[in-house]
Amino acid sequence: MPQTKDQDVVIGRRAVSEALEQAPARAAELLLAKGEKSPALGRILDLAKAGGVKVRRVDRAKLDALSGRANHQGVALRLAGYTYAPFAQIVMACRQAGSSALVVLADHIQDPHNLGAVIRSTAAAGAQGLVIPKDRACPLTPAAAKAAAGALLRLPVARVTNLSQALSELQEAGLWGLAAATRDAPPPWELDLKMPLALVIGGEHKGIGPGILKSCELKASLPLAQGSESLNASVAAGVLLFEIVRQRSV
Amino acid sequence: MPQTKDQDVVIGRRAVSEALEQAPARAAELLLAKGEKSPALGRILDLAKAGGVKVRRVDRAKLDALSGRANHQGVALRLAGYTYAPFAQIVMACRQAGSSALVVLADHIQDPHNLGAVIRSTAAAGAQGLVIPKDRACPLTPAAAKAAAGALLRLPVARVTNLSQALSELQEAGLWGLAAATRDAPPPWELDLKMPLALVIGGEHKGIGPGILKSCELKASLPLAQGSESLNASVAAGVLLFEIVRQRSV
Repeated sequence: MPQTKDQDVVIGRRAVSEALEQAPARAAELLLAKGEKSPALGRILDLAKAGGVKVRRVDRAKLDALSGRANHQGVALRLAGYTYAPFAQIVMACRQAGSSALVVLADHIQDPHNLGAVIRSTAAAGAQGLVIPKDRACPLTPAAAKAAAGALLRLPVARVTNLSQALSELQEAGLWGLAAATRDAPPPWELDLKMPLALVIGGEHKGIGPGILKSCELKASLPLAQGSESLNASVAAGVLLFEIVRQRSV
Repeated sequence: MPQTKDQDVVIGRRAVSEALEQAPARAAELLLAKGEKSPALGRILDLAKAGGVKVRRVDRAKLDALSGRANHQGVALRLAGYTYAPFAQIVMACRQAGSSALVVLADHIQDPHNLGAVIRSTAAAGAQGLVIPKDRACPLTPAAAKAAAGALLRLPVARVTNLSQALSELQEAGLWGLAAATRDAPPPWELDLKMPLALVIGGEHKGIGPGILKSCELKASLPLAQGSESLNASVAAGVLLFEIVRQRSV
């Protein structure tokens, strides 16, 4: 996991381009590696110009340092401070969403690629937000933001000290806890998933903690072919999210 | 993408452990970093002993070199030559599987994490195999094998020169081409997916090529919330694979 304190930087051509398109107001400065040229950069420069965003050519080494170990493709965008959303804001949005409320709680995802993919899927499923724990989990690093391909700008992400307590507050707001279990649970399509839901997904190594698993009213596990023990954490989350989308749309 | 010619090495505790469990006969040599100690290694050593696999302590630098840039966690397993499966073997397995036949064709996946996650999902969905193109796509690198978490030992992966021609041969064997489109197609749950299927998924950057897209009899695209353009390639593949599993199981 890239070690960096810069959590307000978007890197990579695709993510930067989407950030400039969707939230130009949050863009503070566009950084380009000296000598970097490509057709994609032309479009990024046009977007920056249109949004009145300051552009600066910097040494590639500076981008390397800013990006941790992730591949920046010669371009980075400083945002005017990415901040986590207050958890209360997500609870409020769920109350307003009523029966279509949907939140994802990620119980200790540690890989930034997986976290980014989960952010992307959670936004694409139309959820009100994502909740991650403060300890032993990947925070919003530049690599995670890149893997999220711009979805961070649309999806509120809250970071809480106690994930079990967050679930309990969502349950008080009317959501049902749905655990993505790895075994001993029916497939999601045998459950009714049309109520407001807080989907709890496990991390790569330990799955969902026993305490929070116990608090979930619903548990689902995907039937896997013999010999397969589990899916990639972000894939499992995506499959469950789109089963919820399917049930709500038919 | 890690640049390495060693395509017959499994790295990382989880992948090595699964490989020793599921295919001890293919394990040639277990390599451990000098000084590396952890409870997980104890189990790996037990498995190696039970399978009669030779164990060697090596310098960490050797494991680094063997693994490209991927995180080996102090452990690697040399396999007795990972070889791609002949494409004809997958076609044969499909003929035998009859109406439950399922193959995934990955149209230029370039990230080893994504390729590994696709291998894992394809195996977990009970498919007969995965087909990847020879050019401009990630081959079976150690990083991809690690992300596949042992699934490579269960799933035949064929590498072909011409993906369109492979699809056409699968169609001759009775499979229907199903394209994971990014737009302008109905959601997968509005299609009948109970026939033998060749699921074509796109790469991270360009999606599915126009020629192969045209050859598919069926096209599906996931309905995404406003502002979302796409999912991570391996997540999209997983969602479609488990929609197929769902339809076939209900």
